[in-house]
Amino acid sequence: MNLTGDTEAFDFAVIDSRRSERTGYPEAVYCAGKTLEQAAGIIIRMREQGIPVLGTKAEPALARRIALRFSEVEYDVLGRTLTVGTLCSPAEQQGLIAVVTAGTSDLGIAREAVRTAEFFGSKVTLITDVGVAGIHRLFNRLSDIRKAQVIIAVAGMEGALAGVLAGLVSAPVIALPTSVGYGASFGGLSALLGMLSSCAPGISVVNIDNGFGAGYQANLINKLACSQASVPPWEQHQTP
Amino acid sequence: MNLTGDTEAFDFAVIDSRRSERTGYPEAVYCAGKTLEQAAGIIIRMREQGIPVLGTKAEPALARRIALRFSEVEYDVLGRTLTVGTLCSPAEQQGLIAVVTAGTSDLGIAREAVRTAEFFGSKVTLITDVGVAGIHRLFNRLSDIRKAQVIIAVAGMEGALAGVLAGLVSAPVIALPTSVGYGASFGGLSALLGMLSSCAPGISVVNIDNGFGAGYQANLINKLACSQASVPPWEQHQTP
Amino acid sequence: MNLTGDTEAFDFAVIDSRRSERTGYPEAVYCAGKTLEQAAGIIIRMREQGIPVLGTKAEPALARRIALRFSEVEYDVLGRTLTVGTLCSPAEQQGLIAVVTAGTSDLGIAREAVRTAEFFGSKVTLITDVGVAGIHRLFNRLSDIRKAQVIIAVAGMEGALAGVLAGLVSAPVIALPTSVGYGASFGGLSALLGMLSSCAPGISVVNIDNGFGAGYQANLINKLACSQASVPPWEQHQTP
Amino acid sequence: MNLTGDTEAFDFAVIDSRRSERTGYPEAVYCAGKTLEQAAGIIIRMREQGIPVLGTKAEPALARRIALRFSEVEYDVLGRTLTVGTLCSPAEQQGLIAVVTAGTSDLGIAREAVRTAEFFGSKVTLITDVGVAGIHRLFNRLSDIRKAQVIIAVAGMEGALAGVLAGLVSAPVIALPTSVGYGASFGGLSALLGMLSSCAPGISVVNIDNGFGAGYQANLINKLACSQASVPPWEQHQTP
Amino acid sequence: MNLTGDTEAFDFAVIDSRRSERTGYPEAVYCAGKTLEQAAGIIIRMREQGIPVLGTKAEPALARRIALRFSEVEYDVLGRTLTVGTLCSPAEQQGLIAVVTAGTSDLGIAREAVRTAEFFGSKVTLITDVGVAGIHRLFNRLSDIRKAQVIIAVAGMEGALAGVLAGLVSAPVIALPTSVGYGASFGGLSALLGMLSSCAPGISVVNIDNGFGAGYQANLINKLACSQASVPPWEQHQTP
Amino acid sequence: MNLTGDTEAFDFAVIDSRRSERTGYPEAVYCAGKTLEQAAGIIIRMREQGIPVLGTKAEPALARRIALRFSEVEYDVLGRTLTVGTLCSPAEQQGLIAVVTAGTSDLGIAREAVRTAEFFGSKVTLITDVGVAGIHRLFNRLSDIRKAQVIIAVAGMEGALAGVLAGLVSAPVIALPTSVGYGASFGGLSALLGMLSSCAPGISVVNIDNGFGAGYQANLINKLACSQASVPPWEQHQTP
Amino acid sequence: MNLTGDTEAFDFAVIDSRRSERTGYPEAVYCAGKTLEQAAGIIIRMREQGIPVLGTKAEPALARRIALRFSEVEYDVLGRTLTVGTLCSPAEQQGLIAVVTAGTSDLGIAREAVRTAEFFGSKVTLITDVGVAGIHRLFNRLSDIRKAQVIIAVAGMEGALAGVLAGLVSAPVIALPTSVGYGASFGGLSALLGMLSSCAPGISVVNIDNGFGAGYQANLINKLACSQASVPPWEQHQTP
Amino acid sequence: MNLTGDTEAFDFAVIDSRRSERTGYPEAVYCAGKTLEQAAGIIIRMREQGIPVLGTKAEPALARRIALRFSEVEYDVLGRTLTVGTLCSPAEQQGLIAVVTAGTSDLGIAREAVRTAEFFGSKVTLITDVGVAGIHRLFNRLSDIRKAQVIIAVAGMEGALAGVLAGLVSAPVIALPTSVGYGASFGGLSALLGMLSSCAPGISVVNIDNGFGAGYQANLINKLACSQASVPPWEQHQTP
Repeated sequence: MNLTGDTEAFDFAVIDSRRSERTGYPEAVYCAGKTLEQAAGIIIRMREQGIPVLGTKAEPALARRIALRFSEVEYDVLGRTLTVGTLCSPAEQQGLIAVVTAGTSDLGIAREAVRTAEFFGSKVTLITDVGVAGIHRLFNRLSDIRKAQVIIAVAGMEGALAGVLAGLVSAPVIALPTSVGYGASFGGLSALLGMLSSCAPGISVVNIDNGFGAGYQANLINKLACSQASVPPWEQHQTP
Repeated sequence: MNLTGDTEAFDFAVIDSRRSERTGYPEAVYCAGKTLEQAAGIIIRMREQGIPVLGTKAEPALARRIALRFSEVEYDVLGRTLTVGTLCSPAEQQGLIAVVTAGTSDLGIAREAVRTAEFFGSKVTLITDVGVAGIHRLFNRLSDIRKAQVIIAVAGMEGALAGVLAGLVSAPVIALPTSVGYGASFGGLSALLGMLSSCAPGISVVNIDNGFGAGYQANLINKLACSQASVPPWEQHQTP
Repeated sequence: MNLTGDTEAFDFAVIDSRRSERTGYPEAVYCAGKTLEQAAGIIIRMREQGIPVLGTKAEPALARRIALRFSEVEYDVLGRTLTVGTLCSPAEQQGLIAVVTAGTSDLGIAREAVRTAEFFGSKVTLITDVGVAGIHRLFNRLSDIRKAQVIIAVAGMEGALAGVLAGLVSAPVIALPTSVGYGASFGGLSALLGMLSSCAPGISVVNIDNGFGAGYQANLINKLACSQASVPPWEQHQTP
Repeated sequence: MNLTGDTEAFDFAVIDSRRSERTGYPEAVYCAGKTLEQAAGIIIRMREQGIPVLGTKAEPALARRIALRFSEVEYDVLGRTLTVGTLCSPAEQQGLIAVVTAGTSDLGIAREAVRTAEFFGSKVTLITDVGVAGIHRLFNRLSDIRKAQVIIAVAGMEGALAGVLAGLVSAPVIALPTSVGYGASFGGLSALLGMLSSCAPGISVVNIDNGFGAGYQANLINKLACSQASVPPWEQHQTP
Repeated sequence: MNLTGDTEAFDFAVIDSRRSERTGYPEAVYCAGKTLEQAAGIIIRMREQGIPVLGTKAEPALARRIALRFSEVEYDVLGRTLTVGTLCSPAEQQGLIAVVTAGTSDLGIAREAVRTAEFFGSKVTLITDVGVAGIHRLFNRLSDIRKAQVIIAVAGMEGALAGVLAGLVSAPVIALPTSVGYGASFGGLSALLGMLSSCAPGISVVNIDNGFGAGYQANLINKLACSQASVPPWEQHQTP
Repeated sequence: MNLTGDTEAFDFAVIDSRRSERTGYPEAVYCAGKTLEQAAGIIIRMREQGIPVLGTKAEPALARRIALRFSEVEYDVLGRTLTVGTLCSPAEQQGLIAVVTAGTSDLGIAREAVRTAEFFGSKVTLITDVGVAGIHRLFNRLSDIRKAQVIIAVAGMEGALAGVLAGLVSAPVIALPTSVGYGASFGGLSALLGMLSSCAPGISVVNIDNGFGAGYQANLINKLACSQASVPPWEQHQTP
Repeated sequence: MNLTGDTEAFDFAVIDSRRSERTGYPEAVYCAGKTLEQAAGIIIRMREQGIPVLGTKAEPALARRIALRFSEVEYDVLGRTLTVGTLCSPAEQQGLIAVVTAGTSDLGIAREAVRTAEFFGSKVTLITDVGVAGIHRLFNRLSDIRKAQVIIAVAGMEGALAGVLAGLVSAPVIALPTSVGYGASFGGLSALLGMLSSCAPGISVVNIDNGFGAGYQANLINKLACSQASVPPWEQHQTP
Repeated sequence: MNLTGDTEAFDFAVIDSRRSERTGYPEAVYCAGKTLEQAAGIIIRMREQGIPVLGTKAEPALARRIALRFSEVEYDVLGRTLTVGTLCSPAEQQGLIAVVTAGTSDLGIAREAVRTAEFFGSKVTLITDVGVAGIHRLFNRLSDIRKAQVIIAVAGMEGALAGVLAGLVSAPVIALPTSVGYGASFGGLSALLGMLSSCAPGISVVNIDNGFGAGYQANLINKLACSQASVPPWEQHQTP
């Protein structure tokens, strides 16, 4: 029997090395749909080119594999994020993003958002378990939440946290639905539809369980707010 | 051409005349799926047998048709309810049900619930436009809401009102999703799924736009609460 | 490799210690979406504060973990409920709730409802396997069912039990759809939609497999019926 | 401007003139998706070839158009069926099919089934408004229903009638879901899923609002049965 | 730790011992949603009462458990059916049902239908892998298929076999969609919707993967037919 | 009151004038989502630049408006296509595409495909009403169908025509689902899913009712087959 | 006949007069689900209190009604927005938002977004008809798009514009799916799911056709970017 | 215990040995829904008849089983394809198909398409990881892509690659959606709907993850383009 398909060299991925030029930040690596070999190959190749790497939806086995090669690996067990190298040191983090979760079960996805926003250079505060079923818990933390330039509202089930928050603050809210729940939650669909349908303005929504996307978008907005860039973005790039 | 099918006598409906014995209340008439002739025929037949009638989802033309025959017709334009005769006078109404709406657009369905509960003998208070996007409006009315034995929470879009309310009160909440909204509201689906998925206990849900069902169920519960029936229900009936 | 995310102290949950004040009952713990460490941490913390705890969707491993710490653990294998401590002794249980199941396969979810209602202080009778495919089995038990103040109808597949029951009794029916079935049952969707669409009034519905929600709501209603509370609920709380 | 597309001769349809040979019965004409010209053209062409025609989902305008050409047109206003000519006279109708409806709103679709089965040569009895919300109405008619060789159960909303009936009779049940209902009925989906998911055996299901399909299938089965059983099924059982 | 819920006596099921009287046949046992203890308990109890038992969706472990108690167990590995005792010996089987499958992957579900129909007393012929992608394979077997009184068409994916067959035969077709396929097959949904939407009359449909339901319904119809038609249907037509 | 929004000059559309260079053919105009003013504006602008125009999903009023300006308008009533000018005369049409419809109701969408393919330069033969419910009608036309280089199979309801055809021919089949049908057809969903799930290879599918897309794709393929292009496509363009 | 329900005074709405304090901007009025009387009543009441009003999804009849009372009404025919009074004069508009549409049919929803963002004080540039089917049109406008602080990508059908844009710019992208399209577009669902699933980071999504929500969110973000607020938002409010 | 169902001889499959005559190519074997015994039995039987075999969705265990019997087995680990024997040697492969993937995670399905097209005789070039989030990667490979006669666009998530490509090339595009993604990707549904809804013409779509179907269809089209068949296909066959 002749085997093919698993011994190919590095022709399964094209590193988007000019992404930073176009969008201001390097690529991150979504690890879930890839074989361990593919994900490790991409991460190692990027790091060898000097690019700090954020991997998301990463299994512990992948982190262990990468740690054999580089010592600077950080792996977050709950959030399943992996970083190799530092794009922005804690001291350089700017502004403030509040990541607010409805329940304990949303914590893994929330941490994915936290780690993403920190990696790309934002300060983040995490406020957990303040869902609307006990709304005084939210009011107790409101003054902290209002200090942020951007808010990420993380909730499964009915996802009501995003709408309630948006009616209480002046910052934009990034709604992050999670697949927490069962039955009519339909894997996060109820939270997603609720967040999209909310009558409170000032909300925009990312994919179910997409902590990375929420953290990335919040970082973009936070950076707009906290720096008066001396060179505006449209004068820095000539791409594509 | 020979026509059939529209001149049949009264063989299109069977009045459930023993429903009161079994369930404590007479049948109501859901008018939406019936021809004007069928709906009018059933209502008139019931009223002639002395049964007070509640018609729901009734068009004005039906009300006008019935008003040609009976003088005691009441028609609610927004709620599209029709009553012919009185099961329970305002003075006999008992207990208290709070019908609470998220927005102005929910008012028609809310009034269907109000009129249903009143028809079957409950006192009702209607509190409108206190949705979660401006949650202080809800807190302003909370002391009134807490006076009720049962609460009906009426909301479209993300339907978050039910979950927030259930975390603030000790009374059972009947969640009534409405088809208010567009896009990802999918005709009330987002509100329905959100209400079903709510992490706050003390909620049960009726069909989208089913003001009648919410009002009926709330009346059953309210009656349990407000009277110590001398003859318990299980000794009154021998059916079927 | 540096690990984060699993060694955090108790910042993953906020115990809603004033829930009893607002709603009359303490929080329960939904264990399914949490790590074993999180669920155990919350339960132990609550119990240490003197709060009797009900955990739902709990795995045996969690029960064993809690039993290492407290001797008073009760675990229901079929219903996957866990209790630590007693809110209300059997002697103090009041009123009557009938939990009625369509089939043997619905028994696990039904027991979750039974244990919840008992925990919060209701008497419960469980009547099993009386689904509509052999409707005489239901009629045989009807006089027992009619003794209850509230009825929980537990059914998967087409969920017809709720509508049939509601046409036969004067008590409110809480419909509890289960994910029993296959193919066009779509994980409980057929039962859920059927129960929501039922033309029989007097039904409200909880989430698929939400035995806890049904038991909690039935307990609220049952309590309304069986006690003339000397101090009405709206005079007991000043929250939030 | 040059117009095309509406003046084509008879190349838009191919009459399946050998259908009777293969399946025992001639084609029927589904009129809903066709222009008035197309539907009329097909019906007239078939009738001119001597084939008795059944048209379904036919608008009154079509019936009037056909009546200009043939005198023998019968049009059923509620069921929207149209017949031109007779395949089988009332005297030749055999066996017995019971068409049983849950509510008045299901009557139009039920009549489509009745007219179809009669057209193809079955005797039919129509029993209306015996839905499960008032189940004694069904028991009152059970001895009549049990006389049939085949039963068509017509219901919208939760569609529970089919499952209840199948548990009470020995004849096969054809379940015919209707689009009666609103909200979570989703245009007949709740009835369809419920009927498919029913735990009672002896049910098979046709498309939502497909009165024609139910009537046709019931006629096929009825004809199989009507040859000569010496002891008719309704004299064999006395249950329940 | 106190355990409850798994040591209950036989209160989890109510054997419908009068089902034969009402419907002509004893109950079958759907094993999939039950614990091994529950399924075994029900089967043993029924067999002890002298009732021959058909179990469906049964795992091999259940068969082995039952075989410890009764020697007469038959277990079909592909179809996952289990029989204990005989309702009708092979010699007593009557009429003819053709079970026709589109592909090899549909064979398990098809065998569930075969075993069910045989158990209840029908002769069955199984014709496999004649799906519409190679339609001559179907024509090669058509004369065999036309000998049957009833036809079960088993297909996943697009489910086209049912509609094609129904246009070629005079017998009623029971369409049995299977969950064979992937992607847009959505677990059998594409086959189910296609079979329901078929423009060919003479089809009724059972639930996805419901071999039992198809076999049961086909047996009911076959029994109606098998008395004694002097000219069998397969000698009446020569088409196409 | 100040009105805005309907008097803007031509800034609502950007004509893709280099589309021919890149893809070989000019843009067509999808008229359905546009106001009459927008659609007419775009068509007139394109024609004034000398581009022959095909408009799809066009209402008669639009055709009349365009006919006021240009004399060369052709409008197809059933297919709702509009052409202004000629890209390719009938004499220049090449190869052969067979457009095959399941039923008369599919004819409008089929004609949209026919007119599109002809406009872009293919010969087309239209074969109607040969759906699988009477499959001999298809066999009667098979020799004609086999003359085509590409086949478009147009069907609503269960959409089985595509799979049956693909098993009988060597040409690629473009499956074109239509929204013909009701109930479980769900606006063409059943045909779409069936065509996508077909086990016969050699099928690819376009959007529901997308006659234009099917005709365009078939023309591309047909052209590949019928000409040995002296200048290969990749040497003709330097875009973008 | 006694009519109720349409003569109520102003108890159908509660103006959220402290919204500006909490969120920085006054309420807007969603007109679609309200009767003309309700919408007009709310708008007039707000304007009388001195609040500049933005109404969305407003019919021309509503605009005409309001224009009878106030002279300062602006109505956008395509975008169906209505303004009464000015929150922010054109000279005061700050920053820059680019609203980019895929096609002409998306223009109405795009204009709703434009008018909303302008009303709340942002400068806006509208770039139309640059969808991905002719991607050079997008590149031609890229330098203009890159000048914006925030980008709104408006697209129906497959909604690919958002993902392509997000890979080319450093500004956050608000994706606004529209219901443009037919068949498998399912009323905007395909665009919505595509935008949510995009692998390009830097996107967040609002409801289908929610031009208001996109414009509002973009304005919030744009304002963060263009001003260094001397008093930070968390020091301005003490609510609720 | 008597076991049945797994020892049947070769009656579970009918090899379509005349498929080559009708469609030009032999059957392939879809292995996923079959037991290992069934799949192996069919493959071995076909190979023994001299037919070269392509198996898809094949597990390694099946490949190992076949390799025990035949030495000429090739198994592709990523694409899960298995070939036994050669229909067309590499030297005989004609024309050119470009298989273009959006991301690394799409590679397995892409390889299924590559291997299928090669097996049936086409030359294929595979171009990976050029999704629209970094669109310059696509432009870098455009000249290679334009050399192909047919293009397969493989993408999960939003599936935008197909529409962008179709606007840039003159070759027909076969869109192949994959189940790569999570949340709102719903197992490939977002990519499928997006590809079907694309406004770019020149696209047709196959089932989610159906690499075989895409490769087969592309091969059919490629062969049309690259050979002037001396004997046209409609003169070679007389079937069925």
